[in-house]
Amino acid sequence: MAQKTTEGTSLHQGILERLDAGEIVIGDGGFVFALEKRGYVKAGPWTPEATVEHPEAVRQLHREFLRAGSNVLQTFTFYASEDKLENRGNYVAEKISCHKVNEAACDIAREVANEGDALVAGGVSQTPSYLSCKDKTEVKAAFQKQLEVFMKKNVDFLIAEYFEHVEEAVWAVEVLKESGKPVAATMCIGPEGDMHGVSPGQCAVQLVKAGASIVGVNCHFDPETSIETVRLMKEGLQAAKLKAHLMCQPLAFHTPDCGKQGFIDLPEFPFGLEPRIATRWDIQKYARKAYDLGIRFIGGCCGFEPYHIRAIAEELAPERGFLPEASEKHGSWGDNLSMHTKPWVRARARKEYWENLKPASGRPYCPCMSKPDGWGVTRGAKELMQQKEATTEQQLKELFQKKK
Amino acid sequence: MAQKTTEGTSLHQGILERLDAGEIVIGDGGFVFALEKRGYVKAGPWTPEATVEHPEAVRQLHREFLRAGSNVLQTFTFYASEDKLENRGNYVAEKISCHKVNEAACDIAREVANEGDALVAGGVSQTPSYLSCKDKTEVKAAFQKQLEVFMKKNVDFLIAEYFEHVEEAVWAVEVLKESGKPVAATMCIGPEGDMHGVSPGQCAVQLVKAGASIVGVNCHFDPETSIETVRLMKEGLQAAKLKAHLMCQPLAFHTPDCGKQGFIDLPEFPFGLEPRIATRWDIQKYARKAYDLGIRFIGGCCGFEPYHIRAIAEELAPERGFLPEASEKHGSWGDNLSMHTKPWVRARARKEYWENLKPASGRPYCPCMSKPDGWGVTRGAKELMQQKEATTEQQLKELFQKKK
Amino acid sequence: MAQKTTEGTSLHQGILERLDAGEIVIGDGGFVFALEKRGYVKAGPWTPEATVEHPEAVRQLHREFLRAGSNVLQTFTFYASEDKLENRGNYVAEKISCHKVNEAACDIAREVANEGDALVAGGVSQTPSYLSCKDKTEVKAAFQKQLEVFMKKNVDFLIAEYFEHVEEAVWAVEVLKESGKPVAATMCIGPEGDMHGVSPGQCAVQLVKAGASIVGVNCHFDPETSIETVRLMKEGLQAAKLKAHLMCQPLAFHTPDCGKQGFIDLPEFPFGLEPRIATRWDIQKYARKAYDLGIRFIGGCCGFEPYHIRAIAEELAPERGFLPEASEKHGSWGDNLSMHTKPWVRARARKEYWENLKPASGRPYCPCMSKPDGWGVTRGAKELMQQKEATTEQQLKELFQKKK
Amino acid sequence: MAQKTTEGTSLHQGILERLDAGEIVIGDGGFVFALEKRGYVKAGPWTPEATVEHPEAVRQLHREFLRAGSNVLQTFTFYASEDKLENRGNYVAEKISCHKVNEAACDIAREVANEGDALVAGGVSQTPSYLSCKDKTEVKAAFQKQLEVFMKKNVDFLIAEYFEHVEEAVWAVEVLKESGKPVAATMCIGPEGDMHGVSPGQCAVQLVKAGASIVGVNCHFDPETSIETVRLMKEGLQAAKLKAHLMCQPLAFHTPDCGKQGFIDLPEFPFGLEPRIATRWDIQKYARKAYDLGIRFIGGCCGFEPYHIRAIAEELAPERGFLPEASEKHGSWGDNLSMHTKPWVRARARKEYWENLKPASGRPYCPCMSKPDGWGVTRGAKELMQQKEATTEQQLKELFQKKK
Repeated sequence: MAQKTTEGTSLHQGILERLDAGEIVIGDGGFVFALEKRGYVKAGPWTPEATVEHPEAVRQLHREFLRAGSNVLQTFTFYASEDKLENRGNYVAEKISCHKVNEAACDIAREVANEGDALVAGGVSQTPSYLSCKDKTEVKAAFQKQLEVFMKKNVDFLIAEYFEHVEEAVWAVEVLKESGKPVAATMCIGPEGDMHGVSPGQCAVQLVKAGASIVGVNCHFDPETSIETVRLMKEGLQAAKLKAHLMCQPLAFHTPDCGKQGFIDLPEFPFGLEPRIATRWDIQKYARKAYDLGIRFIGGCCGFEPYHIRAIAEELAPERGFLPEASEKHGSWGDNLSMHTKPWVRARARKEYWENLKPASGRPYCPCMSKPDGWGVTRGAKELMQQKEATTEQQLKELFQKKK
Repeated sequence: MAQKTTEGTSLHQGILERLDAGEIVIGDGGFVFALEKRGYVKAGPWTPEATVEHPEAVRQLHREFLRAGSNVLQTFTFYASEDKLENRGNYVAEKISCHKVNEAACDIAREVANEGDALVAGGVSQTPSYLSCKDKTEVKAAFQKQLEVFMKKNVDFLIAEYFEHVEEAVWAVEVLKESGKPVAATMCIGPEGDMHGVSPGQCAVQLVKAGASIVGVNCHFDPETSIETVRLMKEGLQAAKLKAHLMCQPLAFHTPDCGKQGFIDLPEFPFGLEPRIATRWDIQKYARKAYDLGIRFIGGCCGFEPYHIRAIAEELAPERGFLPEASEKHGSWGDNLSMHTKPWVRARARKEYWENLKPASGRPYCPCMSKPDGWGVTRGAKELMQQKEATTEQQLKELFQKKK
Repeated sequence: MAQKTTEGTSLHQGILERLDAGEIVIGDGGFVFALEKRGYVKAGPWTPEATVEHPEAVRQLHREFLRAGSNVLQTFTFYASEDKLENRGNYVAEKISCHKVNEAACDIAREVANEGDALVAGGVSQTPSYLSCKDKTEVKAAFQKQLEVFMKKNVDFLIAEYFEHVEEAVWAVEVLKESGKPVAATMCIGPEGDMHGVSPGQCAVQLVKAGASIVGVNCHFDPETSIETVRLMKEGLQAAKLKAHLMCQPLAFHTPDCGKQGFIDLPEFPFGLEPRIATRWDIQKYARKAYDLGIRFIGGCCGFEPYHIRAIAEELAPERGFLPEASEKHGSWGDNLSMHTKPWVRARARKEYWENLKPASGRPYCPCMSKPDGWGVTRGAKELMQQKEATTEQQLKELFQKKK
Repeated sequence: MAQKTTEGTSLHQGILERLDAGEIVIGDGGFVFALEKRGYVKAGPWTPEATVEHPEAVRQLHREFLRAGSNVLQTFTFYASEDKLENRGNYVAEKISCHKVNEAACDIAREVANEGDALVAGGVSQTPSYLSCKDKTEVKAAFQKQLEVFMKKNVDFLIAEYFEHVEEAVWAVEVLKESGKPVAATMCIGPEGDMHGVSPGQCAVQLVKAGASIVGVNCHFDPETSIETVRLMKEGLQAAKLKAHLMCQPLAFHTPDCGKQGFIDLPEFPFGLEPRIATRWDIQKYARKAYDLGIRFIGGCCGFEPYHIRAIAEELAPERGFLPEASEKHGSWGDNLSMHTKPWVRARARKEYWENLKPASGRPYCPCMSKPDGWGVTRGAKELMQQKEATTEQQLKELFQKKK
């Protein structure tokens, strides 16, 4: 197959035109985890002030995803609602301003998108206000504030992502929908449904009814589990005779042991997840399965690095007819290993080898699965109330005690 | 401890002045693996033509390491000898030129080093010529060619790294030593010694006698094994009444199952190593152990991402008196998790938690250890002869057959 | 607690009197696996001709279970229907006779039962005839033939166990019920139900309606899974407003990875199951969970050795008021370790230690879970047809080929 | 190969005649572990009073080993020295008498040996007296007392086994040697040597010089490690130009993670070792490796059940020309599985399948390896002093504290 870096047909076309035409749209990977490892994002608050503080780092990561095959560049506005930027002693809104963080994110994404054939999607995500039981008006106002920036910067479409409660996701879709731009909505749930017990099928139905044209899941679970959740969403939509495009942006971490709330509850979250990182071959299997289920917006979330996105693009190259730019530096199924100096490594230059490999952990004192933490607290519980000021020593001491 | 980003005393001082004064010098991480995942380096040949093709990507990675605490920026000239740039169908020398690749690497490293308090080290590594039994003159000429660039660009010191045979490493040191600049030399060996059976102690002795002021190991083995190898080197030097500074730049992959030749032989090399990636806590333990053994040049090799280097700098912050710039975005031992929305994650904001975590692999169908490939071929064997032209289909077929 | 070897109240009482009075009845363990390891049973056919060939070995195993706390000794008549004794080249019926195998089993069980306070249960299990689609009359005749021996030898009650299809189990219960003796019935199924897709709840309902006074599961799944299946049976009975005692006799192998057909499909069956063997502490947890669910007939199946049965008796000693005879040689929760010569082993003489131990496998090259074989063939398929003559070389060759 | 249950040539021949003639002699398995699971031995003291209390259980186990292929039946006199029978509150000597325990053991072994072609070996093992620093005379007197019984009962030869210190083993050999009967001596050590740091080679030399005709190892380590230790013994003997037959009776537990003192230090000892139990295929590999090294007395220790001994006999059947009696019930390499009802299990009736199986642990929350306890106390330390009276609550409390 000839290697091409752009595809004539889709240039300048919108997200719905592409999906309606049956095109595969490749999303990008997870910014907060990737930039945390690169030194620009703080684990805990996970807020995106790097757009102002270190635009070159954000720009470079966008470029890598574009080069790896992403057709959509999401503005790095995850957790960039004003209340989140001010939560638990973070004070980003005060020091920089919510407006500037969101604006810078749009500018950087657009700059890089223009270097290739990619769309810019403005994104909102769940808010501490909702978790702290603030009312609908207040929560919607937070989304509205971000939307104003997205409209000013004229993003191509909008994504409401990372919602644990469909109620809040619906509010977000309602706000975004007013813009007239296409809206995608993904929840960070597994097959058990949202935190209030709403099933994936019901979540999908509510989101489409609220105005989302594309629905699915992102984050919290591994590719296999996420595809299963989207399958349940698809069934729910079919049962309700509703139509929508399907989308999947899972973790690049294996999470066979997760409960309802996903990887947050794993003891390894967020600083011990390394052994769970998916290989490129795991991701190729994911891309194929997602495609086979009818998902056409296929991307990733936390843990997805550029090479994972490239793996999606390589797996689906036969269907798409072209390879991403970064495949200049990557032979499909390892075939560049034919250039290795060692003969036994050259012997690994074939699909059969990598497809069947069961990689060892190199950690003989560690188990394969963990029991997730399960405190059983839900929205409304005292411990889940958010606060502007930093967590106090006394609060931490109580938590450490409870943890034991 | 107050967070500082520069340390007055060492600014503008050379590598030997720093080490002689007892300072801890932090190296950088592995460029070929990190840039392969970002889409700029081809696994197999592993050559650094990205310095010319994508300088922005190389520059950004240097910056991240500097920000994470690196005091030495190595020019991205790994495998940049002319014979390697032309090996097995790679043709980089022909398309770009060996000279340009090395020059660009020096320019980028210097540009970033000037943004902080870091030294630039020009690096050479083992050659296909040696493996193919070319004579001493020819091998030395390859190093000489790279050295000319390093001298022209006036790097601060030189590193001969990634040598499997001490004989070739000595030749490299002899060439580099003629420059008058300080020379460090590291071999990619484990406790069993080099590929010809020379013990680590003997390797160290030969390297120091050839002119190296700093000796140690890099690549091929995990931190624990590498420290053990440096310990053997230290003993060898003591027995021979020789003095040198010690250096360690191991993998950030766990390799308890490796044989003599290290991770190259593992079935997971190079595309299935994810489950073996070290956590930041593993690296903090490594930094402490390395320090306790008397190693003062402490860095990393393949698998080391910026956050791993930051972990070295954080672990040794009490000794050094300052934190790296990237620690703005990282609370020591997870203490920024006190800003997390979920209470059970806030309960992980403490050293005791992360220090004792045994992270699960999330891969219940995979084992913990692998049997390394062991073809038993050594320098001189037909299969180890390198060639300029690409590996043929017939050659590959023979290898696949042998692999079975 | 005073150690007693008999309990006055239950002596000479029947199984239903005991269960109706709320007593805990402890079953025995798995004869075919235990005697295979001792050298008296052939894996593959799994038939009990040892009752005639080596009565001393069968007697000794009964004695060990009695000593460990069993209140029920099952006649060793598993797979002792005439058609099974003649299946695939086994020829036991021809060489010994079905009648003699069953008679000897009854005699040995009675002899040992009289040495303590135990009941003798005559047992039947599923037949090759059913699998080969023989009709109801023929299948029932096989059970009838065994029942005649049980009546002649006057066993205390009857067990129909190890049925994969509830249809056949119902036929067995109907035959046994005619005897007027109490009938227990257990299926070797998991939460997914029988091989025809009948749910556990429905299975329980059909068995009780057919005349079983005690229902539950045996074999094929680990304790945890089996308890879950009995829980579903209990719910089914409650929904149908039916009453029956509950019974559980699971494997002593961990089978978290099993599919619908249980451990038969695991690649390790039957000669590589060692790493899955439950510890005595696993069994104590099982006994407690079974008790808490309301199960009062608690025993084991394949993999259960006498010390596993003792673990049930020790866990439930507080409720029962006495320990089994074999506890003379076993301190609860390891407290006899206080007599060990090594101090660090004496330090293990406490419940907290053993309760929390996560035992290592000692097998670093092996995974934790396996993918079960899943040929998807069911009753009626050519490969499932049984035959009197031995499997031919040609038949085996076809199977090996299919296995690849 | 025709199946034979006796072999004409060796009937009535002594142990040295057999070994001198190049015969393979198969030992038996571990009595204390097997009988602990059957309910007759107390873990902790591990003493053999079952010979008097439950002779039928001891006899049955001897029979199973004989049937499995054992050519040597060891009297069940492990830890039957008077001081051990009285250690830490055990009081067996007081209640039964050391003399009677040893006598009964000899009688039972002889009775069963006469049922086949087996020799009876009287055995002594290390004493608490030595550990408590009693003098040579006192320690030797303990062995002498047992020897008197062995002579009276006219055993065929003698084994001094399970010694952690070669000094004590030499004393034992000196005592036994006076009888004029052949003496075998095995130590429970690994490649690191005895508890005082004497190398395996040196241990072997000292034992042969003291009069042992057969030397090797038993217990404490897995087959692979034990063979390595015997290899070092063989080299030691060759270097010293001494001749002796080699013997190996390892654990049937995998212990890749053990330190100097073997499995006693593993956190799983003695009640959580199940996942480490060797399969029959592991034992066949052991038998082959032992044979290839020149070991001709091949048996087992703790964890070896009759089917493990049968595996030795089956693996070496080509060399010996016959199969053991128990192979009536066991097809080599699983070939009786051709009689199984399920086709995919029939497909496992072949060597290639079982030889390559990597059995899963079924324990996804458990690791593969453990860190051994290492208290670093050696002979002479207060905690290692033995005492006649039971360990007090206060002593235990101190140990529990230390264990934390």
